[in-house]
Amino acid sequence: MTAPLTLVSHALCPYVQRAAIVLAEKGVAYRREVVDLSVKPAWFSALSPLGKTPLLLVGDSAIFESAVICEYLDDTLSPRLHPLDPLARARHRAWIEFGSALLSTIGGFYNAPDDTALSMKRDELVGRFAQLEATLEDGPYFAGAAITLVDAAYAPVFRYFDVFDALQDFGIFDRTPKVRAWRSALRQRPSVLTAAQPDYESLLLEFLRRRGSA
Amino acid sequence: MTAPLTLVSHALCPYVQRAAIVLAEKGVAYRREVVDLSVKPAWFSALSPLGKTPLLLVGDSAIFESAVICEYLDDTLSPRLHPLDPLARARHRAWIEFGSALLSTIGGFYNAPDDTALSMKRDELVGRFAQLEATLEDGPYFAGAAITLVDAAYAPVFRYFDVFDALQDFGIFDRTPKVRAWRSALRQRPSVLTAAQPDYESLLLEFLRRRGSA
Repeated sequence: MTAPLTLVSHALCPYVQRAAIVLAEKGVAYRREVVDLSVKPAWFSALSPLGKTPLLLVGDSAIFESAVICEYLDDTLSPRLHPLDPLARARHRAWIEFGSALLSTIGGFYNAPDDTALSMKRDELVGRFAQLEATLEDGPYFAGAAITLVDAAYAPVFRYFDVFDALQDFGIFDRTPKVRAWRSALRQRPSVLTAAQPDYESLLLEFLRRRGSA
Repeated sequence: MTAPLTLVSHALCPYVQRAAIVLAEKGVAYRREVVDLSVKPAWFSALSPLGKTPLLLVGDSAIFESAVICEYLDDTLSPRLHPLDPLARARHRAWIEFGSALLSTIGGFYNAPDDTALSMKRDELVGRFAQLEATLEDGPYFAGAAITLVDAAYAPVFRYFDVFDALQDFGIFDRTPKVRAWRSALRQRPSVLTAAQPDYESLLLEFLRRRGSA
């Protein structure tokens, strides 16, 4: 693959981080272009049918949807992050989708209008992480010693909790030691550290305060 | 692949139809197991982390999420329905995701609580199909003469409108002749005809009436 790559990003978008982690793990050079999703430029709307980030520009072509972008990067650049066995690959893909559902629950958690809703969403998160706990093996990553696309999908999930932890101890991971170890391993990974912009935590805190949620 | 296949289904689930179409296009024998999602059996909840259909049982393993199931079937059974070129494949995968977003808009349309909401959702659908119109080429299918996974994703989208058309002319496809031709080609495809159970239309009509939506 020789066409230049551009990752079209939004500062707080967790799905952009997935693609950024994969690009870093592949060790490939790319440009980042940040768009303001509250005032979408016309060129962006023309290329992103659902109006969402990330987009990956490959020369003159645009790819939308983060899972699709990560698959494309894995199809075209080494090292391979998906397992070679089709059944194992299907399992990885399915847990990536589970991670997307988890991001949606996290959205419900930080948008909770009152303490009751917050508590319900907190319990839902605890249940989801208990499901993950039951699928994890020895670690440190989802499938062992080597990082995979599943890890790229969950690192942005865990990053939210670094900010939530600064606000209050919600005890989300109290009963899931394997998930805690996974979270901790991902937090130290260079590709994860550089996936969000340096002021991500302060931007997210400001965003949460403006929402005025519980 | 020699392990026996079982598609775990729900009568009205459009995502199940995607997998059923792919299985039919591959000409492979499989068993269908119907579950009632309002009273989920314990074995189902244990295998489907998000509690959704479809599931594909491959011998003793279970795969969840329709897009993942379709990719697995395409990875393991001929004929190949995805393009071989990685960029073309990414484009196909992205438009499949667009089809999932469209299914969510359709849900908003048939759940609309009043005429204003219904009209807004109708306009959103018209806009989404105009976007599709701009990407379609000569047809009759998404990528020409041969059926692809994208077609399997949109046939269940169009099937909803067969039922909506019986209720009222919403004029959704008035300005999208290529989409109309695509819809018509898919409706005649044997794999599409057999993807839903024979009483699908009457079950969906009954479901819509019980909802009491606009």
